[in-house]
Amino acid sequence: MAKKKLARLSEVIMTEMVLPNDTNTLNNLMGGKLMHWMDVVAAIAAQKHSNRIVVTAAADSISFKHPIALGNVVTLKSRVTRAFNSSMEVFIEVWAEDIPANKKILTHRAFFTFVAVDQNGRPIEVPEVEPSTPEETELFEGALRRRQLRLILSKRMDPKDAVELRSIFDLDKEKE
Amino acid sequence: MAKKKLARLSEVIMTEMVLPNDTNTLNNLMGGKLMHWMDVVAAIAAQKHSNRIVVTAAADSISFKHPIALGNVVTLKSRVTRAFNSSMEVFIEVWAEDIPANKKILTHRAFFTFVAVDQNGRPIEVPEVEPSTPEETELFEGALRRRQLRLILSKRMDPKDAVELRSIFDLDKEKE
Amino acid sequence: MAKKKLARLSEVIMTEMVLPNDTNTLNNLMGGKLMHWMDVVAAIAAQKHSNRIVVTAAADSISFKHPIALGNVVTLKSRVTRAFNSSMEVFIEVWAEDIPANKKILTHRAFFTFVAVDQNGRPIEVPEVEPSTPEETELFEGALRRRQLRLILSKRMDPKDAVELRSIFDLDKEKE
Amino acid sequence: MAKKKLARLSEVIMTEMVLPNDTNTLNNLMGGKLMHWMDVVAAIAAQKHSNRIVVTAAADSISFKHPIALGNVVTLKSRVTRAFNSSMEVFIEVWAEDIPANKKILTHRAFFTFVAVDQNGRPIEVPEVEPSTPEETELFEGALRRRQLRLILSKRMDPKDAVELRSIFDLDKEKE
Amino acid sequence: MAKKKLARLSEVIMTEMVLPNDTNTLNNLMGGKLMHWMDVVAAIAAQKHSNRIVVTAAADSISFKHPIALGNVVTLKSRVTRAFNSSMEVFIEVWAEDIPANKKILTHRAFFTFVAVDQNGRPIEVPEVEPSTPEETELFEGALRRRQLRLILSKRMDPKDAVELRSIFDLDKEKE
Amino acid sequence: MAKKKLARLSEVIMTEMVLPNDTNTLNNLMGGKLMHWMDVVAAIAAQKHSNRIVVTAAADSISFKHPIALGNVVTLKSRVTRAFNSSMEVFIEVWAEDIPANKKILTHRAFFTFVAVDQNGRPIEVPEVEPSTPEETELFEGALRRRQLRLILSKRMDPKDAVELRSIFDLDKEKE
Repeated sequence: MAKKKLARLSEVIMTEMVLPNDTNTLNNLMGGKLMHWMDVVAAIAAQKHSNRIVVTAAADSISFKHPIALGNVVTLKSRVTRAFNSSMEVFIEVWAEDIPANKKILTHRAFFTFVAVDQNGRPIEVPEVEPSTPEETELFEGALRRRQLRLILSKRMDPKDAVELRSIFDLDKEKE
Repeated sequence: MAKKKLARLSEVIMTEMVLPNDTNTLNNLMGGKLMHWMDVVAAIAAQKHSNRIVVTAAADSISFKHPIALGNVVTLKSRVTRAFNSSMEVFIEVWAEDIPANKKILTHRAFFTFVAVDQNGRPIEVPEVEPSTPEETELFEGALRRRQLRLILSKRMDPKDAVELRSIFDLDKEKE
Repeated sequence: MAKKKLARLSEVIMTEMVLPNDTNTLNNLMGGKLMHWMDVVAAIAAQKHSNRIVVTAAADSISFKHPIALGNVVTLKSRVTRAFNSSMEVFIEVWAEDIPANKKILTHRAFFTFVAVDQNGRPIEVPEVEPSTPEETELFEGALRRRQLRLILSKRMDPKDAVELRSIFDLDKEKE
Repeated sequence: MAKKKLARLSEVIMTEMVLPNDTNTLNNLMGGKLMHWMDVVAAIAAQKHSNRIVVTAAADSISFKHPIALGNVVTLKSRVTRAFNSSMEVFIEVWAEDIPANKKILTHRAFFTFVAVDQNGRPIEVPEVEPSTPEETELFEGALRRRQLRLILSKRMDPKDAVELRSIFDLDKEKE
Repeated sequence: MAKKKLARLSEVIMTEMVLPNDTNTLNNLMGGKLMHWMDVVAAIAAQKHSNRIVVTAAADSISFKHPIALGNVVTLKSRVTRAFNSSMEVFIEVWAEDIPANKKILTHRAFFTFVAVDQNGRPIEVPEVEPSTPEETELFEGALRRRQLRLILSKRMDPKDAVELRSIFDLDKEKE
Repeated sequence: MAKKKLARLSEVIMTEMVLPNDTNTLNNLMGGKLMHWMDVVAAIAAQKHSNRIVVTAAADSISFKHPIALGNVVTLKSRVTRAFNSSMEVFIEVWAEDIPANKKILTHRAFFTFVAVDQNGRPIEVPEVEPSTPEETELFEGALRRRQLRLILSKRMDPKDAVELRSIFDLDKEKE
């Protein structure tokens, strides 16, 4: 890996208005449309970090708790948290804003993973990520644990080897 | 819960062609667009099972291994696997087909969760799901384990209580 | 023509939700949008039968009797009925479903014709169609009559030569 | 019927550019997209004639002979030919133009039928059409014959009663 | 410049319906969507005059006085007014029509400028414009003054040199 | 006017990728699409300043000097510069970025004007803008001059009364 790049240099902000065709029968934003926007804002962050073409490798599980209404303004902010050779984890936050009502709430925190590729679609190494704030450091450290969960869920890692992940299941404590 | 409904009655098949605006710089389908289609095909299956308006509650983690090219035909098949009061887990399979090359591959297996709501958006009970094939039964049984993982990942369940989920980490064996 | 292929191997199912931008002032699906979907679902069936690029050659007359409302789920099913050298007739059925009301009606039966072409857009021969159910056989046999009507309507056949078509006008009986 | 209106008062001209998402693998306009445009331009002509909301009742058979390329400018012209109580037949002509090559060809002549409705979707009478050019008169007179063909094809008329239509099959001559 | 072409040969008429996704919270057409349509209709006029690929060079200031409602039919008419080497000024008029209410008003008069380019994007000379009606002549003459304002506003001309433009500020009278 | 609000509180950042359907024959972003994005990003800034529904009142002249290529990332930043009773001027900056080439250029600086309205579409007073940086102060002061130009160009002000605007024509110096 050539050199480190600051996490914040990859930050992307995207703003969208919820239009009629984006909504379901209750006039709320459809989940699939929001995932589409998340993918775009996260892909651009991964592109900025790597200066490469990137392809989506994984979307972590997302839960939808707050309905987002027709006419709301949706703001998405993305930032690369950590790189693993050719792959990058991107953190996405989503806010929904009812401007006339002066209300803005954080509706989602999500993680997507992208792989940097060359013109033929072959994976290519990317710079390391250098966190420079406490929040970035926490995201950087958690990335390893989330990566293990991803590998287990896609059946590419044996749960026994997921040392960092086991902490969320408090397995060591239990066994004592 | 009023009565049981067969899982297969909720089956939905959707077919889409990959158009230029759906693709990235490598002329492959963008991940976000595919998630959008998954959400639509799964929402219709949940509607068919519940005969209700439904809203997306969760999308489980999805990994993207096979690029899907411009001009490919994408087939999505969805089916409700199990209901929990007002929520339904939906299983989605995705195939990409290069028709002139006569190649069709299964590219994705994914799970989305929906909640049935009334006209005011309040959750409302849905029928139970009755599996009638070995595959449906396996999906029905796994639904409990996946639900526990979802609740833990969204911090609504303590990992210690996830009895079914622990099996994937082989925790009981380990402790012996 | 190389070999025969079963009609049902070309079957395609497409599912669409009626969104706001697809509707007219009465909140019903616009006819033009439905014809667009018909063309897509039928083109994919013709591609599957021929494993070729296909271009639309004709859309038979379509009548619109049942309004399809905003929020309805529209299911389109297509299947090749018969091949004539490089052209294929495709049969399309359309259902509109109001899921919360538990109502599903067959709204359209239509025929489109496609021509298989090579990379330079030149017509190329396709396999014959082998019907294997009574319905497929009826569609196969009627294809000849519909083809004559198409040729007459586009002024490429003299009505006197349309032997099969004359039956729908009962011309032989009349003359007796 | 209250009063007559001149055919030419309903004329509508629409211009569209063929964009990437409108095209098939050969970079030519998809037939379904063109039918969508035809429906829109014809619906506006029917609205102008009737000053009412209109719904598509029928699209006559359309054949596609000339491929229309990406980047071409497509001009559609529509005009009401004749009214029958609440229904109106609309004539549509389509030209495709490759402007840098200075080539413009007439690619389609098509007929759509619309019904004027009130706010509850019930059919409502429209003014008669008054042709004022030889071409308009020919279209006005042919409308009766095309209507009989439509009724027969949708099985709402017995071919024996289609007096005007029989002329295209030269049935009277034959019987002599 | 090779030869003159009549202004009216470049005329383009475009008709659009205002759909839900084109509107703001008050159900009126968004200004940005209208500017998009203006750009398309004007670009086609510039293409027709020059038989070349054209790129937008400038949009003059536009004011929005009349809201255009959902369901309205919008008619845009464009015509080249004058050419300056490789650039062309295009005049656009916009009408909004509420057909059931039988109301049509002129909502906008706007000017866009385009540059004709070759396949490599380099500017290329276009024919002169020949006005043939009093309105076309007035537009042709005013084009010089509008061009000076454009050059001053984009800081490419010193206001002192804008001889024609000064008339709108009555500068000569003032100095006397 | 109730109270002042800081200019920077209205800032909005929007990020878009140039997709195939947004481009012309040279694979560059169409001017009309960019104006559409400008309108959206500026409208949201005006909404944030006023906490009201806003409608576009004017777009100042825009010149297009730098082609923006397919695949580029376009970043738009908007901020309210000054309010005049119910109207607000919004300043928009646009950057185009070729990420793999690591090139980002400022392509546009533009001004749009919006009017805040109530639910019935009637103009309603908005807070004053308080600039807090030298750039914001310069924009605040220039707003008066640009407003006079807008009023003259839309023929609602006599050029003689445009005291501030005259400075750009250096009229006072000339007369000395």
